[in-house]
Amino acid sequence: MTQQVSDLPSGPLDIYRQKASFPWKDMRLFLDGEEAMALKQRVFAAMENDPLFSRTPGEDVPVERMRELTFLRVKQLFRYDFLTNEEALADPWKTVVLNDCLGMFDWSLAAKFFLNKGMFGATVASGGSARHGKYVHGVEDMTTFGCFALTELSHGSNTRAMRTTATYQPSTQEFVINSPDFEAAKFWVGNLGKTATHALVFAQLYTPDGVCHGLHTFVVPVRDPKTLLALPGVLVGDMGKKLGQNGLDNGFALFHNVRIPRENLLNKTGDVTPAGKYVSPFQDPDKRFGASLGALSGGRVSIARVALVNLKLALTVAVRFSATRRQFGPKDGMELPVIEYQLQQWRLIPYLAAAYALERFSKSLFDDFVELRVGQMMGERTDRQAELGREIHALACSSKSSASWTAQRGIQECREACGGHGYLAMNRLGSLRDDNDPNCTYEGDNNVLLQQTSNYLLAWMDAKRRDGARIRSPLHTVDFLDHFHRIRDGRFTARTIDDCADSAVALAAYEWLVCFLLEESHKRLEQHRTLGQDDFEARNNSQVYYCRDLALAYIERCCLLRFREWTLREDTPRRLRAVLGKLCALYGLWSLSGHMATLYQGAFLSGREPARLIQTAILTLCAQLKDDAVALADAVAPPDFILNSPIGNADGQLYKNLWSTVTQGRRALERPSWWKEFCSDKPAVGSLRPKL
Amino acid sequence: MTQQVSDLPSGPLDIYRQKASFPWKDMRLFLDGEEAMALKQRVFAAMENDPLFSRTPGEDVPVERMRELTFLRVKQLFRYDFLTNEEALADPWKTVVLNDCLGMFDWSLAAKFFLNKGMFGATVASGGSARHGKYVHGVEDMTTFGCFALTELSHGSNTRAMRTTATYQPSTQEFVINSPDFEAAKFWVGNLGKTATHALVFAQLYTPDGVCHGLHTFVVPVRDPKTLLALPGVLVGDMGKKLGQNGLDNGFALFHNVRIPRENLLNKTGDVTPAGKYVSPFQDPDKRFGASLGALSGGRVSIARVALVNLKLALTVAVRFSATRRQFGPKDGMELPVIEYQLQQWRLIPYLAAAYALERFSKSLFDDFVELRVGQMMGERTDRQAELGREIHALACSSKSSASWTAQRGIQECREACGGHGYLAMNRLGSLRDDNDPNCTYEGDNNVLLQQTSNYLLAWMDAKRRDGARIRSPLHTVDFLDHFHRIRDGRFTARTIDDCADSAVALAAYEWLVCFLLEESHKRLEQHRTLGQDDFEARNNSQVYYCRDLALAYIERCCLLRFREWTLREDTPRRLRAVLGKLCALYGLWSLSGHMATLYQGAFLSGREPARLIQTAILTLCAQLKDDAVALADAVAPPDFILNSPIGNADGQLYKNLWSTVTQGRRALERPSWWKEFCSDKPAVGSLRPKL
Repeated sequence: MTQQVSDLPSGPLDIYRQKASFPWKDMRLFLDGEEAMALKQRVFAAMENDPLFSRTPGEDVPVERMRELTFLRVKQLFRYDFLTNEEALADPWKTVVLNDCLGMFDWSLAAKFFLNKGMFGATVASGGSARHGKYVHGVEDMTTFGCFALTELSHGSNTRAMRTTATYQPSTQEFVINSPDFEAAKFWVGNLGKTATHALVFAQLYTPDGVCHGLHTFVVPVRDPKTLLALPGVLVGDMGKKLGQNGLDNGFALFHNVRIPRENLLNKTGDVTPAGKYVSPFQDPDKRFGASLGALSGGRVSIARVALVNLKLALTVAVRFSATRRQFGPKDGMELPVIEYQLQQWRLIPYLAAAYALERFSKSLFDDFVELRVGQMMGERTDRQAELGREIHALACSSKSSASWTAQRGIQECREACGGHGYLAMNRLGSLRDDNDPNCTYEGDNNVLLQQTSNYLLAWMDAKRRDGARIRSPLHTVDFLDHFHRIRDGRFTARTIDDCADSAVALAAYEWLVCFLLEESHKRLEQHRTLGQDDFEARNNSQVYYCRDLALAYIERCCLLRFREWTLREDTPRRLRAVLGKLCALYGLWSLSGHMATLYQGAFLSGREPARLIQTAILTLCAQLKDDAVALADAVAPPDFILNSPIGNADGQLYKNLWSTVTQGRRALERPSWWKEFCSDKPAVGSLRPKL
Repeated sequence: MTQQVSDLPSGPLDIYRQKASFPWKDMRLFLDGEEAMALKQRVFAAMENDPLFSRTPGEDVPVERMRELTFLRVKQLFRYDFLTNEEALADPWKTVVLNDCLGMFDWSLAAKFFLNKGMFGATVASGGSARHGKYVHGVEDMTTFGCFALTELSHGSNTRAMRTTATYQPSTQEFVINSPDFEAAKFWVGNLGKTATHALVFAQLYTPDGVCHGLHTFVVPVRDPKTLLALPGVLVGDMGKKLGQNGLDNGFALFHNVRIPRENLLNKTGDVTPAGKYVSPFQDPDKRFGASLGALSGGRVSIARVALVNLKLALTVAVRFSATRRQFGPKDGMELPVIEYQLQQWRLIPYLAAAYALERFSKSLFDDFVELRVGQMMGERTDRQAELGREIHALACSSKSSASWTAQRGIQECREACGGHGYLAMNRLGSLRDDNDPNCTYEGDNNVLLQQTSNYLLAWMDAKRRDGARIRSPLHTVDFLDHFHRIRDGRFTARTIDDCADSAVALAAYEWLVCFLLEESHKRLEQHRTLGQDDFEARNNSQVYYCRDLALAYIERCCLLRFREWTLREDTPRRLRAVLGKLCALYGLWSLSGHMATLYQGAFLSGREPARLIQTAILTLCAQLKDDAVALADAVAPPDFILNSPIGNADGQLYKNLWSTVTQGRRALERPSWWKEFCSDKPAVGSLRPKL
């Protein structure tokens, strides 16, 4: 089966490829599965062979041209139609695989494509009704180009505070959309800058009686599809250059008495009758609001995956670089590949372990999310379904935060680990960092999202205290809290490095850690309440060192647990188990080491030995994995054309590739056009010196 | 005296400005002093009034145009001649102030200017002799444009391994410069890409007898100053786009039998007679090599400063944003500025404290460095002078690492703390991050440099053990190690938050920490040696968790100590002492909290209370300082034109400034030039679908 995977070119990386403890093709097959592997290859091959997707590493493309190129490429994706709706429905994971492929090429491309079809199209489909079918169809053949307009200039995290209004007028059976002032302009809307014809606008719905029914979603035409000119009453434009993802045209819009038909309200969670009466199946406005923001949960699940893909790309570059870059050595004239140094191993290999852990976690969370969505679509209203929604919300919020930060730090470490060469744009670590960056703040700032997760955990504890109910959730991520007292009494018992090489050690420590932080967070909240603070204040003052750490510890434990279960599964190939087991143990101990002070503080650890043991185990595992690092990178690496980084090419010809890309750079060898400015017009030193 | 500082415009920031516990103008005067303040104002005013320096926030400038603009601005700096050589000699600190000013505008400008006059000019002046005077003068009026060519494609950190050769030919009295192959091409050389006429080339010097005398420095003409065309035998070019600093033209050069006169060898540390005999005042080639790299030490001192300036700019933006951005609140319709949230305070205010600590440290280290250089220029050969050199080397290596990482993390935190708006290029946090990034890797990768510092500390400990000598260094940064045993027996004794508000608490903890890590690092090294590892191997295997942490703890302690002494000095204005004292205590505790696990591991802390106390003290200090944060930023902020960030403007009109910059963006409101690509040429869905 692995025959369909091409061999990698021979070269300086052979040394490490031969030392690897497992065949990288087996690992790739295990991670991806045959079908996803085939889809990836189709997508990659199509892009590589299409001149529209050609590019040169590090080229300097103006923002306007990037916007244009990305649009043209998106259009080409309609022609390729890599994944039909039927195929996506039959195997939803393939939408993730496709998104991975597009993102590995360029995240702007993936985002522009997805915001139209996924975010706009799917939200209309799920939040609207039969009358909105034309928009759903329109995005399929690009007659409509959609965007999702929630955030405003002065409000992001606080979604409820959006100020755009939609006032119903029975006389014309229209909604009138208005931005009360420029601070309420829709802002940061992907696709709105240049191409969107329609926006899903979140606005406060007012009925003729002057009552506000809260945020609802409206399909608002913003540009004439025949001319791309703004429609009357709409001031729409492009926000300009961002730190990254510049192929995506983020935009703003200000609405001045823009009239849309009554039917343009997405009416699943609430509707207005022609006469102007508000009707809703939801009694509770909070629940209605929550249901209308369902698209954001899915967004968070996919952001964690996006971050992971970035981390894998950066690690591929840095690991291959480190295995071929030689610097210093025991004797003159004999230099070691930098991956042989303990420090370099410690900088990179734990992130490799984290990438494998997140690989497993993101797939499993997606499966959970699909289960939730299927239940929603089936109209399931069981307690389990509701509970599953809460649990996945807690997992999505925290894993989005944890994965985006892990990727952020990992990419930064990769960039520094490649020294100066990592600072050359052509090697792509900069654009990976820039493109990954918004993952930390959009669809909810990481710190704000972590509060959602800690609130979820604290609610379990409150319920337990209140009525002694058994703690048991659909995905079992909190079940261990039912043994709170036993776990809290536990202590670190590992005595040898071999003990620590079993991920059970880190897992036990994490269980203790979550229980400890849960208890401490609870106490902290109570303290503040005793001091007379209201809930808002008490929660705000319990985040740092308490609730925030709690949420992070919870998600790291989940990630570790799922990774561990996966390595132990019967159907995990035997010859991959050893390396996966090491990665799992390393991920666990390394993540845990970020909480070492808390483990000591709560006396789970005591004395000098435990920390030393954990540290030695981390270094030992890194050393054991360094000969596998190249193969581990190979297993997750895209083809060179997609990776687009001369120092990360699969042939390992680091300097040859770098040198030829540099010397072939546009005008690299020409004198500058402005050479006479140097040669002729010499400055008179001090001629402009300011008078003192 | 503070009358010369203009008032800041009134606006939403007034609330916090009025709450501040001190007048920001007093702080600025205290930090800068009158003369530096006047110089800054002159430089800023000249740039703001010169059309050549005009710019628009977030504009998309092609790399080639950035190279050109930066050159033209450098040329203009010759005309301004803000600081004559005489002025710089009379007060060397002013060169730092000037560099700060240029860098606040754009680091490419500062680098391009400095690499020519400082790095090339000053190295020729200090490493050469009378015969090199023409080059020193040439850079003064831009007839010569110089660069510093050390790094090669395949070697950076390992400077000794450079492979470019300079072979002396007595028949013509010339050196022949050769690059043995492209991997030995000079690489990353600032100014070499487009403008340099002369390069200081580091090459292995060979005498006719075939003996290699190690790396020496040669002035090699690379381009004809009359045409800017490459000279025969020189392949020279531009490396292309980097992650940042794109106004600086980093370049490469490959030499093929390039002949230069014998006199072009910088001959202070070694010379070749016309007949071809090598002569040197240095017996020891290592010392000769060290002396020839003197310029790099100065470089590291200034990099720490550059990083600090970046951190100050980012904090100005993020603090002003946080004081004006409102999100959520205790009740509907009443939203709080985000700086009121504990989490936001904890994210930003410790970095503000670190910026003040580094402000003091970088100035004091510069003073020490000037003392060293004066001694060198006077030809001082005392033991003290040699010891001062070693100590400053240890301080420069570790403070460069510590400051660049602090800035890297701080800027990232600022960018995230500004949410989506921090991701807009116009708000500058991206370019600050990108421009700061190379500080972590150039003039020595941070991790490699930290080894220099830990080696220095371990050498003191070895000397003490060997012959019981008293530990006492010229700058007294290691004197406390003489009380090693007493310190190691110490324990954390603070009991209240008030105790912790005295920086003496953190300082005592740091003394213990350095002693503990020194002992542990020593033990670790001995362990490895006992296992039969040679020194190279034993050191490599003792970096993580030991030597590396040791070096960081040492420099953090130095920084804290100097900050503390400064706050307590008699001439520190009374009304600034309270806020400075809080910043100092916060900096100490917050830095220390990164080592909390080690403090527990070594039993300096025990039980639950100490960590809780330290954490509560950090949060308390943050809360106490939040009303001062805006004034603290104002005191270090440049004028708006220089800061160049609409969300960071001094008037605090966050949304107004952002909105007007966005809507005035080039073609922001126009439809894209490629609109017909959307409107006319609709894709046939699936027409290119790959066959399965």
